[in-house]
Amino acid sequence: MSRLSLNTATTKNITLAEAVSLSAEAGLQHIGVWRDRVAEAGLDKAARLVSDAGLSVSSLCRGGFLTAADDAGQAAALADNTQAIVEAATLGTRELIMVVGGLPAAGLLTGGPAVDPSAPGAKDVAAARQRVADRISELVPVAQEHDVRLVLEPLHPMYAADRAVLSTLGQALDLAAPFPSATVGVVVDTFHVWWDPALESSIQRAGAEGRIASYQVCDWNLPIAADALLSRGYMGDGYIDFEAVTRMVAATGYAGPVEVEIFNQSIWDSAASSVLATVKSRYETLVEPHL
Amino acid sequence: MSRLSLNTATTKNITLAEAVSLSAEAGLQHIGVWRDRVAEAGLDKAARLVSDAGLSVSSLCRGGFLTAADDAGQAAALADNTQAIVEAATLGTRELIMVVGGLPAAGLLTGGPAVDPSAPGAKDVAAARQRVADRISELVPVAQEHDVRLVLEPLHPMYAADRAVLSTLGQALDLAAPFPSATVGVVVDTFHVWWDPALESSIQRAGAEGRIASYQVCDWNLPIAADALLSRGYMGDGYIDFEAVTRMVAATGYAGPVEVEIFNQSIWDSAASSVLATVKSRYETLVEPHL
Repeated sequence: MSRLSLNTATTKNITLAEAVSLSAEAGLQHIGVWRDRVAEAGLDKAARLVSDAGLSVSSLCRGGFLTAADDAGQAAALADNTQAIVEAATLGTRELIMVVGGLPAAGLLTGGPAVDPSAPGAKDVAAARQRVADRISELVPVAQEHDVRLVLEPLHPMYAADRAVLSTLGQALDLAAPFPSATVGVVVDTFHVWWDPALESSIQRAGAEGRIASYQVCDWNLPIAADALLSRGYMGDGYIDFEAVTRMVAATGYAGPVEVEIFNQSIWDSAASSVLATVKSRYETLVEPHL
Repeated sequence: MSRLSLNTATTKNITLAEAVSLSAEAGLQHIGVWRDRVAEAGLDKAARLVSDAGLSVSSLCRGGFLTAADDAGQAAALADNTQAIVEAATLGTRELIMVVGGLPAAGLLTGGPAVDPSAPGAKDVAAARQRVADRISELVPVAQEHDVRLVLEPLHPMYAADRAVLSTLGQALDLAAPFPSATVGVVVDTFHVWWDPALESSIQRAGAEGRIASYQVCDWNLPIAADALLSRGYMGDGYIDFEAVTRMVAATGYAGPVEVEIFNQSIWDSAASSVLATVKSRYETLVEPHL
């Protein structure tokens, strides 16, 4: 259990203090935290809660939303990500997960205002990707100043329009390439990348470049949930071959925490203690033997 | 309108005869047909219906489902695809669209029986892809004999588990590479490929290799429909930049039909004549100017 980390999104309905206690009692050494739980507790108190329990923060979720085309949206994204970098440093983690944002036409999650879908460029995915590269470049010195790593998260292509124009690990590595691996990394999240025909070579490349900042595991359930964000499941409940993907990650020498981050209404509706028990059991059976 | 082709899946609730009449009356020159509509009419009658109306068949949908791991499932897939090749030839089209099938663990659409998800290999996507390559290799001589092209369709990665372990255009081109371009081609379907960071280079490669057998257009709607298969929309209703993708395809010199294939419950519930009117109008505004 020395590498398992419970991400607070998996136990959405409990406080950070409760998730920390639960993790510590279960013998875990790490916890992956979301910013909303940190804000709720207060940043300094959140940092104390975690360290007092003897845990370390495996990653902070999440910065990003960098695709706004307007000046105000871009300034807001830089301010928010600067704050996230400070939060990561305060919590004692180097790894700030970045969900880069979607198309301006898709509105909410771009870091800027909703844009008329028929406006020029509102659906221009190449331009949105370029803006992500530009914002990353601006954030790198801030991250370096705080000794934090911007961890690019390729999201499953079904979220390309509304959440992340970054869809593959290879694309994330290309985006990271101009920057030191200590400052820009990538996360391998099984849910998002399992389908990728280039997965093995991209994981090898990520390892060789020293950019694997986090390994996150959960399953790809079918049918896709009514809210597509909630299609994630316990390892073993869906269609991902965890042995295959875990071996690819292990072969790179990755020795960091393995986070379990599941968005799933039925799991959220269950008692957190039983959720963690299932997470541990599935991890022991399906992931740990292949690390 | 000389290149627009109505795919019969867009007007799911009318017969082939009705779709043919509607297309001819609307001044179209092509029609994309599904095998269920052909079977309903009878193969020879279907061929006569189309040719009597002065139309040509732009593609036959669909062969494939090649991922079964068992002998019986593989034999059944070869028999069914041989039949589909004969049907394409009889209908006077060279282009047989192939949806390659999903993981054995996902059951129905592999061309074989449902497999226990915990059975060895049931979630092995690499092995499933190898079986696709093996079956294509066996089908190539049959396709050559009937002067038909096997047209590999990369499906959106959200269908990788249950419908197609072929997820990108680049992967389709790699799979096609051992075979002549007259016998194995690819389809560019905007819904499936718009998100791909390698889209432009893959379309260029497909064009340079002479493998673009079909260009299919429809939009990526959000939210994803309860049945994820039905998330397609009229061009302009979702998030795809049709100018960008169409220009990429046009730049290769592709001069063939442009099929509109939309699975969408609300469109299926509308009168076919009004559906075709909307298809024509969206095509004229969003696609045709960039061809």
